[in-house]
Amino acid sequence: MLSDIEIAQQAKLQLISEIAGKAGLSEDDLEPYGKYKAKVSLDVYNRLKDKPNGKLVYVTAVTPTPAGEGKTCTAVGTTQALGKLGKNVMLCLREPSLGPTFGVKGGAAGGGYSQVLPMEDINLHFTGDIHAVTTAHNLLAAMLENHIVKGNKLNIDPTRIIWKRVMDMNDRQLRKIVVGLGGKANGMPLESGFDITVASEIMAILCLTTGMTDLKKRLGDMLVAYTYDNKPVYARDLNAVGAMAVLLKDAIKPNLVQTLEGQPAFVHGGPFANIAHGNNSIIATRTALKLADYVVTEGGFAADLGAEKFFDIVSRVIDVHPDVVILVASIRALKSHGGVDKDKLSEENIDALARGCANLDQHIDNVHNKYGLPLVVAINRFPSDTEAEIEFLRQHCNDIGIRVALSEVVAKGGEGGIELAQQVIDALEHDENNFKPIYDLDLPLEDKIRVVAKEVYRADDVVFSNSAAKSLKTLTQLGYGKLPVCIAKTQMSFSDDPSLKGAPRGWKLNVREVKASAGAGFIVALAGDIMTMPGLPAVPAAEKVDIAEDGTITGLF
Amino acid sequence: MLSDIEIAQQAKLQLISEIAGKAGLSEDDLEPYGKYKAKVSLDVYNRLKDKPNGKLVYVTAVTPTPAGEGKTCTAVGTTQALGKLGKNVMLCLREPSLGPTFGVKGGAAGGGYSQVLPMEDINLHFTGDIHAVTTAHNLLAAMLENHIVKGNKLNIDPTRIIWKRVMDMNDRQLRKIVVGLGGKANGMPLESGFDITVASEIMAILCLTTGMTDLKKRLGDMLVAYTYDNKPVYARDLNAVGAMAVLLKDAIKPNLVQTLEGQPAFVHGGPFANIAHGNNSIIATRTALKLADYVVTEGGFAADLGAEKFFDIVSRVIDVHPDVVILVASIRALKSHGGVDKDKLSEENIDALARGCANLDQHIDNVHNKYGLPLVVAINRFPSDTEAEIEFLRQHCNDIGIRVALSEVVAKGGEGGIELAQQVIDALEHDENNFKPIYDLDLPLEDKIRVVAKEVYRADDVVFSNSAAKSLKTLTQLGYGKLPVCIAKTQMSFSDDPSLKGAPRGWKLNVREVKASAGAGFIVALAGDIMTMPGLPAVPAAEKVDIAEDGTITGLF
Repeated sequence: MLSDIEIAQQAKLQLISEIAGKAGLSEDDLEPYGKYKAKVSLDVYNRLKDKPNGKLVYVTAVTPTPAGEGKTCTAVGTTQALGKLGKNVMLCLREPSLGPTFGVKGGAAGGGYSQVLPMEDINLHFTGDIHAVTTAHNLLAAMLENHIVKGNKLNIDPTRIIWKRVMDMNDRQLRKIVVGLGGKANGMPLESGFDITVASEIMAILCLTTGMTDLKKRLGDMLVAYTYDNKPVYARDLNAVGAMAVLLKDAIKPNLVQTLEGQPAFVHGGPFANIAHGNNSIIATRTALKLADYVVTEGGFAADLGAEKFFDIVSRVIDVHPDVVILVASIRALKSHGGVDKDKLSEENIDALARGCANLDQHIDNVHNKYGLPLVVAINRFPSDTEAEIEFLRQHCNDIGIRVALSEVVAKGGEGGIELAQQVIDALEHDENNFKPIYDLDLPLEDKIRVVAKEVYRADDVVFSNSAAKSLKTLTQLGYGKLPVCIAKTQMSFSDDPSLKGAPRGWKLNVREVKASAGAGFIVALAGDIMTMPGLPAVPAAEKVDIAEDGTITGLF
Repeated sequence: MLSDIEIAQQAKLQLISEIAGKAGLSEDDLEPYGKYKAKVSLDVYNRLKDKPNGKLVYVTAVTPTPAGEGKTCTAVGTTQALGKLGKNVMLCLREPSLGPTFGVKGGAAGGGYSQVLPMEDINLHFTGDIHAVTTAHNLLAAMLENHIVKGNKLNIDPTRIIWKRVMDMNDRQLRKIVVGLGGKANGMPLESGFDITVASEIMAILCLTTGMTDLKKRLGDMLVAYTYDNKPVYARDLNAVGAMAVLLKDAIKPNLVQTLEGQPAFVHGGPFANIAHGNNSIIATRTALKLADYVVTEGGFAADLGAEKFFDIVSRVIDVHPDVVILVASIRALKSHGGVDKDKLSEENIDALARGCANLDQHIDNVHNKYGLPLVVAINRFPSDTEAEIEFLRQHCNDIGIRVALSEVVAKGGEGGIELAQQVIDALEHDENNFKPIYDLDLPLEDKIRVVAKEVYRADDVVFSNSAAKSLKTLTQLGYGKLPVCIAKTQMSFSDDPSLKGAPRGWKLNVREVKASAGAGFIVALAGDIMTMPGLPAVPAAEKVDIAEDGTITGLF
C-alpha cells in the first residue's frame, strides 16, 4: 500500500469553491487560501441559525497505545461512507500542531484512503490559526512583564504571574526558564516557561467562542497574575484585549477543506485532549450542523479525555450533544492493553485480546451507560488482524449488547466504512439517547474533579497537593466554583500513570496543580506528571521530512 | 485629513486577479489568500528570465528622527505617480513585523494616500511568511538542544551554541534567558535568548535565496555551534534542512498586493536594516524586474544601513544594481538633525534646516559620489513645512548639483509625486551610472568593516572588542574571509551612538561582537549597544488597537 503522503499527492482535488457548493456555501461566504482551502464567514451561521441541526456523530476511541487505533481515519472514513450512501454530510476535525508533526506522532489528517486534503498544508502552517494564537498569547506575556518593568501601576506581584508563553513546537528546554537576565536594560529576572500553543487558554477560547464580541469578553476575563495584595489581574487590565482580538480575527473563522472523496470538512482549532479540552471549534461544529444532515466530529485521544471534555464542557456551551458515538478500537491496541509487547502484536493472540477488552468495556460503560449515549464500536482493521480475532471482538460486543462494525476505511476509503455508516444510521433511527453530563455544575470544584476521577477514570479517590488545594480554595473564593473542570492527564492510561494499561483499579488520581482558565470558562487540574510542553524524541520525525526543487514533499505522514 | 487606516478602509480594492493581470500574470501563476492577496509562483521568473530587466528605482532616506521622514509612502507614491504617467510599474516592499506594529512605530504599509493594501492584513499575519521563519528557526533550536540532551553524538559544546531562538514580538525579557531548568526531565540548563524574527538568519536567507535548491543549501550552511574540539557544527549536521525547507515552501513565494491606486506590489521578506540586511526578497525584486519597466523598491532606515547593505550585499547576489536612487528627506527631520527639539519642529527655522543638511549631504555624497549612482532628493512634504524652508532645501540641492523634487504623495497620492517621477525618469535617461560597491570582497573582514565605518559612516576608526577580534580570526580560518559584512548599528545616527545627530565626526565605531551568517552569506558585526530584540515602550501601540463585532479595526496605523 502507498504511504499516506503518496495517496494524498495522487488525489485529484476539487476546487474549494466546488466543495463549498456541496455544503450550500456561495463564493461570497469564502475567503480562499490557495485553490483548496478557504476561511468561511461567520455570517453563515447567523444566516442559518433558525434551521434545525443535523445529526452529530461523535468519534472517540479506546486508550491509545503505541500500536495505534486510527481515530481520525475512522472519522474521515465514516464521512466518506455516509457520502457514498448519498447523505449530506460534513466532517469537523481539529488542526494538527507542528509539535507532533515534527516530533513523534507525525501529521493528523487521517491516513490511507481516509484523509483530509491538502494534507501537507493542513499538517504545516495551514491558514495560520495556530500561529495567530501563539502571537496573541505572547503579546499578552510581553505586555504583562513590560507593565511591571515600566512602573507596575497595577501593583502586580512578579512572583505570582500565571501567564507564561507558548510556542507551537516540542521543546522541553523551554518548560522552565528564567527570563530578563543581563541587567536593567534587559528587564527584570522572572521565572517563566513555554507551553505548547495548543495548551494555551487562547486556543481553548478560540474553540469555545461563538463570535467576536464573545471572544473579546473571554480574552478580557483571562486571569494572568495576582497583585501584591492578592487581587486578581485580568488581561483586560493590561489593555491587551483589542490587539489580541485583532490578531485572532481570521483565526476564528472555520477552515473549509475536503476529504479524499470530496466531502466538505471543517478543520478548525487544535487543543490536545490530554493537556487541554481536545475538541475542534464550536463555531465549526455549529455551522456544520446547519449545513449538513450528518456532522462527523472527533475528540482527542480516548473517551476519558476528548469525549469526557466534549460531554462535560463543550456540550454545555454549544447546547448540543452527540446523537451517536463511534468508539474506535483496533485489535492491535486491545492486544497491547492485554499485555502484548509491541513487536509481537502481529501474532494472533485471542487471550490477550480478551484481556484488553477491559479497556474497551470501561469506555463503553462510560459513554453508553453513564453518559447515556447510543454507541457503535468500530473495529479499525489492520493488515495483521486475523479473522478469528475480528470474530472474537464482534462476538464480545454482541454479547454485551453493543453495536459493532468492521471498518476498512484506511485500505478502502468510504467503501470500507459502509457497514459502520449503516450501523450509525441505524443507531440514530432506533437507539435511545439519554445524554446527561457526568457532574452537576453546582458541585464544589474538588467534587467535580472527584466525580470524573471516580466515575470515568475509576480511581479510588483524588489526592490534591497542598498547592492544588490552596488554588481550589482561592478560585472558589474568586467566584469560579460553578465552572466545569478540565483535567490534564496522560492519554496512555485511564489513570495518571502512563504504564497502567487496560482498566486499572486500586489507584488514586494525584492532582498537583490547579489553575483557572477563566476566559475559556473552566478550571484546569494537572494530574500526575503530565507536561504542557512536550519534548522531542532521540530521532525527531522532522529528520525524515524533505522537499524537492519541484515542491514535492516526502517524509511527512 | 483622515487617518491611514480610515483611508485604507475607504479604498475600493481591485480583485487580486485583476492586479495580477496588470503585471502580466495569469490565474495559474497565483495562489490567492483571500480576495486581495496572492502568492506568486516561482515559475514566473524562470519563464521570463531571458527578458531584459526593467529599471530599478531604489528609495532610501536621511537618518531617521522622531519627526519621521516618510520613506515607505514615498516609495508607494512614486509607484503611483509613475502609474499616473502611464508607465508599467511595480513596487517591492518588505513585510511589516508585528514587533513595531504593536510597539512604538506602528504599521509599515505607507501612509496617507500612498499605501499598500489591504493594510490591516499586511500589518498583521499577512500570508504567514514571518511565522514560517519563526517556526523554522525555533525547530532548529529545539533539534539542536534535543540532540545534546539525547546523547550528543556530534560532541557539541553546550557553552558554544550560537543558534538562539526568535519571536516576532518586542519582548526585552527574552533577550537573555536560561532554559532547561527544573531537573533532568526538562533537559539541561543552557544560556539562550530570543531575537526578533526579522533578525533571524533564516529571514536573511529567505530574502537572498533564488529558489528551493539554493534555499536548502543556505539553510544547511548555517553555523549553529562548535564542538568540544572547536569544529563548526552546521544545521545540516542536525538533519534539520528538509523540515525547515518544508516550513518555508510557501514563504519563499512573493506576495502580490496593490497600491491605493491599483499598481501591483510585491511585499515580501522583512529584515530590519539596523539589526539585519534590511531589504525585501531578491525573488520579488528580480521577478518584478521581468514583469515591469520600472520597479520601485526601498531599503530600511537611512542610506548608511538599508542602502549600504543593498549596494554591498544584495547587489552582488542578484547581480543588479539600482538605476537611480531616491533619497527621502523631510524639512522636519533635517531641522531635528539641526538641533531643534521635537515640540518646536513646526516653527520655521532655516538656520537649523541649514545645519541639518549636513546629514543629507553625507548621504548624498555616499550614494552619488562614492557608490556612483544617479540621485534625486525627494522632499516629503509635511503640513508644517513653510515655503521658505522648501525653497531653501531646493536651492541647497541645486547649489550642489543634485536633482530635487517636492513630493506630496501623502496628501495627494500619485498626483503629488508627478514632479518626483519626472525627475526619476529624467535621471534614468540622462544621468551617468558608475555604480561600484564600497569595498572589494578580497579585503580581510576587519578591513571591510573599516571601509564601511570610515567611508560611509565617517568614523575615525573601528575598535574591535577582544571577543569580536577573536571571532574575526576564527571565521577567517573557517574560510569566511571573502564574505561581505553586515553591520548591526543604531538607525538613529551615522555613528553607533543614537544621540549623535547630523553628520558626526571624531568618533570610533565600537564592534562588540562578530558572528557568521554563513547560510545567508555575510558576517554580522554588532556595533555599539544595538539590541537584536527590541522592547515595548511604557504604553505600547497595541493598547490602542481594537476590532468591532463587524470586523472593523481601529488604532492600527
